[in-house]
Amino acid sequence: MEFTTSQIAHILGGKVEGNADLKVNTLAKIQEGTPNSISFLSNLKYENFLYSTLSGAVIVDHDYLLKDKINTTLIRVDNSYTAFSTLLEEYHKLTTFAKKGVEQPCFAGENLIIGENNYRGAFSYIGNNCKIGNNVKIYSHVYIGDSVEIGDNTIIYAGVKIYSNTKIGNYCTLQSGCVIGSDGFGFAPQPDGTYKTIPQIGNVILENHVDIGANTVIDCATMGSTIIRTGVKLDNLIQIAHNVEVGKNTVIAAQTGVSGSTKIGESCIIAGQVGVVGHIEVAAKTSIGAQSGISKDIFDSGKSYFGSPAVELKQQMRTYSVYRKLPELLKRIEELEEKVLHLPTLQS
Amino acid sequence: MEFTTSQIAHILGGKVEGNADLKVNTLAKIQEGTPNSISFLSNLKYENFLYSTLSGAVIVDHDYLLKDKINTTLIRVDNSYTAFSTLLEEYHKLTTFAKKGVEQPCFAGENLIIGENNYRGAFSYIGNNCKIGNNVKIYSHVYIGDSVEIGDNTIIYAGVKIYSNTKIGNYCTLQSGCVIGSDGFGFAPQPDGTYKTIPQIGNVILENHVDIGANTVIDCATMGSTIIRTGVKLDNLIQIAHNVEVGKNTVIAAQTGVSGSTKIGESCIIAGQVGVVGHIEVAAKTSIGAQSGISKDIFDSGKSYFGSPAVELKQQMRTYSVYRKLPELLKRIEELEEKVLHLPTLQS
Amino acid sequence: MEFTTSQIAHILGGKVEGNADLKVNTLAKIQEGTPNSISFLSNLKYENFLYSTLSGAVIVDHDYLLKDKINTTLIRVDNSYTAFSTLLEEYHKLTTFAKKGVEQPCFAGENLIIGENNYRGAFSYIGNNCKIGNNVKIYSHVYIGDSVEIGDNTIIYAGVKIYSNTKIGNYCTLQSGCVIGSDGFGFAPQPDGTYKTIPQIGNVILENHVDIGANTVIDCATMGSTIIRTGVKLDNLIQIAHNVEVGKNTVIAAQTGVSGSTKIGESCIIAGQVGVVGHIEVAAKTSIGAQSGISKDIFDSGKSYFGSPAVELKQQMRTYSVYRKLPELLKRIEELEEKVLHLPTLQS
Repeated sequence: MEFTTSQIAHILGGKVEGNADLKVNTLAKIQEGTPNSISFLSNLKYENFLYSTLSGAVIVDHDYLLKDKINTTLIRVDNSYTAFSTLLEEYHKLTTFAKKGVEQPCFAGENLIIGENNYRGAFSYIGNNCKIGNNVKIYSHVYIGDSVEIGDNTIIYAGVKIYSNTKIGNYCTLQSGCVIGSDGFGFAPQPDGTYKTIPQIGNVILENHVDIGANTVIDCATMGSTIIRTGVKLDNLIQIAHNVEVGKNTVIAAQTGVSGSTKIGESCIIAGQVGVVGHIEVAAKTSIGAQSGISKDIFDSGKSYFGSPAVELKQQMRTYSVYRKLPELLKRIEELEEKVLHLPTLQS
Repeated sequence: MEFTTSQIAHILGGKVEGNADLKVNTLAKIQEGTPNSISFLSNLKYENFLYSTLSGAVIVDHDYLLKDKINTTLIRVDNSYTAFSTLLEEYHKLTTFAKKGVEQPCFAGENLIIGENNYRGAFSYIGNNCKIGNNVKIYSHVYIGDSVEIGDNTIIYAGVKIYSNTKIGNYCTLQSGCVIGSDGFGFAPQPDGTYKTIPQIGNVILENHVDIGANTVIDCATMGSTIIRTGVKLDNLIQIAHNVEVGKNTVIAAQTGVSGSTKIGESCIIAGQVGVVGHIEVAAKTSIGAQSGISKDIFDSGKSYFGSPAVELKQQMRTYSVYRKLPELLKRIEELEEKVLHLPTLQS
Repeated sequence: MEFTTSQIAHILGGKVEGNADLKVNTLAKIQEGTPNSISFLSNLKYENFLYSTLSGAVIVDHDYLLKDKINTTLIRVDNSYTAFSTLLEEYHKLTTFAKKGVEQPCFAGENLIIGENNYRGAFSYIGNNCKIGNNVKIYSHVYIGDSVEIGDNTIIYAGVKIYSNTKIGNYCTLQSGCVIGSDGFGFAPQPDGTYKTIPQIGNVILENHVDIGANTVIDCATMGSTIIRTGVKLDNLIQIAHNVEVGKNTVIAAQTGVSGSTKIGESCIIAGQVGVVGHIEVAAKTSIGAQSGISKDIFDSGKSYFGSPAVELKQQMRTYSVYRKLPELLKRIEELEEKVLHLPTLQS
């Protein structure tokens, strides 16, 4: 996809200053530009780059005054930051939603109900009795088991694996390699030391606007559903165990794990490499720092936790600030002992 | 799959009380029932749900006395908990082992020796000189390299990748996205600062009744074998490095990593996000708490460890209980210093 | 592949002592040998195994003197360790580079430019406008998006997913299940509590001699490139976020995560399960211990860090050695308090 500067100026309601026929095909930061890219200048901290940029075109504000000669074409708009964001989103839509139609070979089982305007990549697999909405993109090597339901406008990137009976809503995005609905880790210890597998017959529900990162795993429920509520954003390589519920608009960073049957509240912010034990509740609007270990219920909403085991952030910082001085503390104790030792007669 | 309440009563050796022709097709907790599901009541803590449940049928004990009107059909049995477990397993077998035959297109190399009653999903790949037993389920997008051996009754879910020369026993279950036999992480530092790859020519052996979680990785041995013994259960997103051996009936929870050449003993229980360094041995029946770091050999069996670096659990709890009070301890030291300071004459 | 002992002696410039027609087809440690394997004896610690080994042949030094009867054929060379390493590499090349040609079905989009001597496994997928060099091995279930460039001699194992616009250099190795170029985790919080996805339009660049472990994920840049420099070795299940740069010849062990926009210097050694926060720089030649958390810039090169939050290793070890004695320290404080308490008159 290639656009001329005049076409872009038209989209943005702006005005070209320079070469109106210049063709660009990508967006770049002003300091990383190339002749076929368009950049923007909003924060004047980056003003110097305008005079040295390699970008073919730069979006600037109408009222920006040039301080020197430039080698680039300008597109002047009311607000260069907003204009660039608009362009970024348009560009993203064009590239993301360009895929259409059904590539061959691909596989679909019996009784498939599927909407319009979808993409199904070569080697994608859809099991029996599935129901898929409109504008859904199913990339190559996606596996969709039996009786899966998927809403409208959902994008499933290459190699995603979705087990039978999963339900996925509208406007969800699943990155490559994520696994939705694998068997929960449930084993009953037997008297002879072996473990017996507990059948996992539940499913996973992803509501709407849910984003799942690459190689993240969400286990199905033992019975019932593991539920990821509307607006949840999960980063890469996350583990969500059986029967977990993640509340609306909660975001979780990479490599965090949530153990079985735990309920995470709404609008929580959980950093990377956090571990949360099973069978607890984490209150809404809880913030959890990276590498923390949450070992018990958090009942009060809106608080911050840190450490392993995690305690409230402020308390942890106080404790940690003393921890760092432990060698010095030891010395002070030794000095005290020394001093007290030299009071022999008084202790008799 | 749909069954009538009278068919289920027959399977369980029970008696229908209500609609013997009612059809159900799934199992649910009594508090989460739907008209087409069957539930059970065993623990009387949940007794109230019997009178409000939406489940079409509920399994209860023969001697259970109704306290009020009910809107559900009862199936009376000797032990409702045992009966429901039986039903759960039957249901699981029916859904898991339903897949049969060979979907097209699928790929098989030369000299394939394969047993009976198997399933091979579309787009599954089997390399040259493989030997596969009976009742094996190979789902879509499974990759099996050259000279791989797989025993009977093993299930390999969609997208599992198995490198050449891997040996897998009977009754194993591999969840989607797990990788068996990838190259171990071995590099020899060179004088110029680069690293030279050390060829990894060993393999992976999974004995019998081994379960591997989704997106878990087991590297092949440099030479010889990385071995996962009979009855081992590995959760999701686990890292098992080259030449590791995991002992019989050991269970490891999600996101734990075991470094190269380490031997984990039998019947250990290792929680999630644990790290174990390379070239050590962990004694049988060791328990390791979540997020712990095992940095040296554990020689005595049957003990519990916690923390990073991990020490024995009891000791860690004692230490940690003081850690939590560090700010208070600092204050007590300051008070002591203050008091001792006020004894000037005595210290001369 | 099978070789006679005389063929191997010829390759190594050695001399057979025993059966020159013996056929072997694999390599093994001397203590794990089988009749069809060849082993070596260099370190005399393992000398006893020579007299009991099951290996069909053993490589020994020219000047090694037998102490007893042996049941194996010897190949005598100048340096048995070097000879065995040579054999190991030759064996590895033979098995790794044996794959040639195009298995069917496989998929390629429009305008593919591809070199010679490549392998493309069944069910591999190549998008539009890709450019691929010579001697590239693309195994089954590999997904390569649009406009991807791949250099010469690169091996991409089964099930690797490479998003559009990725650039991969020469002599790279990508293990199964790794994901290159997934969307970065970027979301702008909205006033109503929801998050708006920030379009991720950048790409990933892997330079030359880069090794990527199984199920590792490297996100694309928001704009510009996430860059993995020449000679970098990444282990399994690692998370590299958007716009990260990893410097030349840096090695990172399994399950470590690096957050967005962080720059890791050259020749660093980062152990497993480490977390590095976003938007910082880590100086060249930094060593970071397992499970550490790097929460701020590291400016001085060549230092070692440990702990979460990490501080310099020596300092951490000093602090930790006191931490371990905290219960004892508490007791000493209590004793001091007791002693000081018994000086009542002096404190007035």
